[in-house]
Amino acid sequence: MKNQLLCDIGNTNFSFSDGKKISVQDFDISSIDETVYYISVNQYWEKRLSMEENWINLRSFVDFDQYYKSMGIDRIMVCKAIQDGIVIDAGSAVTVDRIVNSKHEGGYIYPGLSAMAKCFKDISPALDVSFNFDIDLDRMPKNTRDALTYGAIAPLLSNIREICKDLPVYITGGDAEKLLPLIPDAIIEHALVFKGMKKILQGRT
Amino acid sequence: MKNQLLCDIGNTNFSFSDGKKISVQDFDISSIDETVYYISVNQYWEKRLSMEENWINLRSFVDFDQYYKSMGIDRIMVCKAIQDGIVIDAGSAVTVDRIVNSKHEGGYIYPGLSAMAKCFKDISPALDVSFNFDIDLDRMPKNTRDALTYGAIAPLLSNIREICKDLPVYITGGDAEKLLPLIPDAIIEHALVFKGMKKILQGRT
Repeated sequence: MKNQLLCDIGNTNFSFSDGKKISVQDFDISSIDETVYYISVNQYWEKRLSMEENWINLRSFVDFDQYYKSMGIDRIMVCKAIQDGIVIDAGSAVTVDRIVNSKHEGGYIYPGLSAMAKCFKDISPALDVSFNFDIDLDRMPKNTRDALTYGAIAPLLSNIREICKDLPVYITGGDAEKLLPLIPDAIIEHALVFKGMKKILQGRT
Repeated sequence: MKNQLLCDIGNTNFSFSDGKKISVQDFDISSIDETVYYISVNQYWEKRLSMEENWINLRSFVDFDQYYKSMGIDRIMVCKAIQDGIVIDAGSAVTVDRIVNSKHEGGYIYPGLSAMAKCFKDISPALDVSFNFDIDLDRMPKNTRDALTYGAIAPLLSNIREICKDLPVYITGGDAEKLLPLIPDAIIEHALVFKGMKKILQGRT
């Protein structure tokens, strides 16, 4: 199978499988003539691209019964990429899903790191600090910065330890690098969303 | 010891140990002649009341070396109330502290339930839902509302299970009733802050 051009359209960027990233404001449809297989959580662009012959929306190839109706299409692709494991997609939100024998057992949504920092700041200006990623999560914090860093990250990791039951833990998304050192044995996988999209395409042919 | 009037001053309310609650806007100093032992996280009122003879700030009786310098005075009182245990104060923020032999081992800060709901909404309008407090946290969620409820609560509870090590778990604060059914064996304690303040006063006399 030749290398197909894939695109993951978010609310801020067009991310292409060849590494190109273009902001939604700057994107020009006429700049791309080749066939593009895409997913979009951006409703405006999903509608706009439905009028273009060379843009193929992968949404219609997804068996939503395996997931749930309102589940984000990007999250579905990340799950599709995994056969067995917990998959953490750490972006503006963090999604955590469990997949066993390629079956989605369910998952949840947690605030992303920036959202969590903003959340603390909104509660009180006294809680407006930058996180300390060198924190030792095996100790109970004794200062405000560590108390907030621990609160943002340790509960998530405790839950992942509880639900993983010896399954491998995969991590992807913009904040994957920041979280990786804090999750022993986690496997970082860049572009898991494209891996899922490729699987969908292969299943189709 | 006679029943002393205690007051916990927050950013929105004066909460008295006799059950009265007065908003900071409506509070009138001249309405109270008796001696009041108080704590305040409200800087304006702490300063203003320092000029009143019958208002005694308990801050000066706290041994901050046992805690940490920037720790909220209300959180310190809640910790002071406990001899051994994990204490969860579920308010606009959730604080979780571990106390062993009346010694504060450390603790952390997690978003309160309303802050968490707002945090999700700020990430995306698609995440603007009310939490489902009837959720079964032993199952991985399969719809958006449960995915967000689980994400807001389950990680916190997983961490508490990990750190409690057979210590009792106490819960106080405005959201205590909502969380209680989800934390097996937790002990609800209303007005733990006043219990701590009484201990401070007893230690002093």
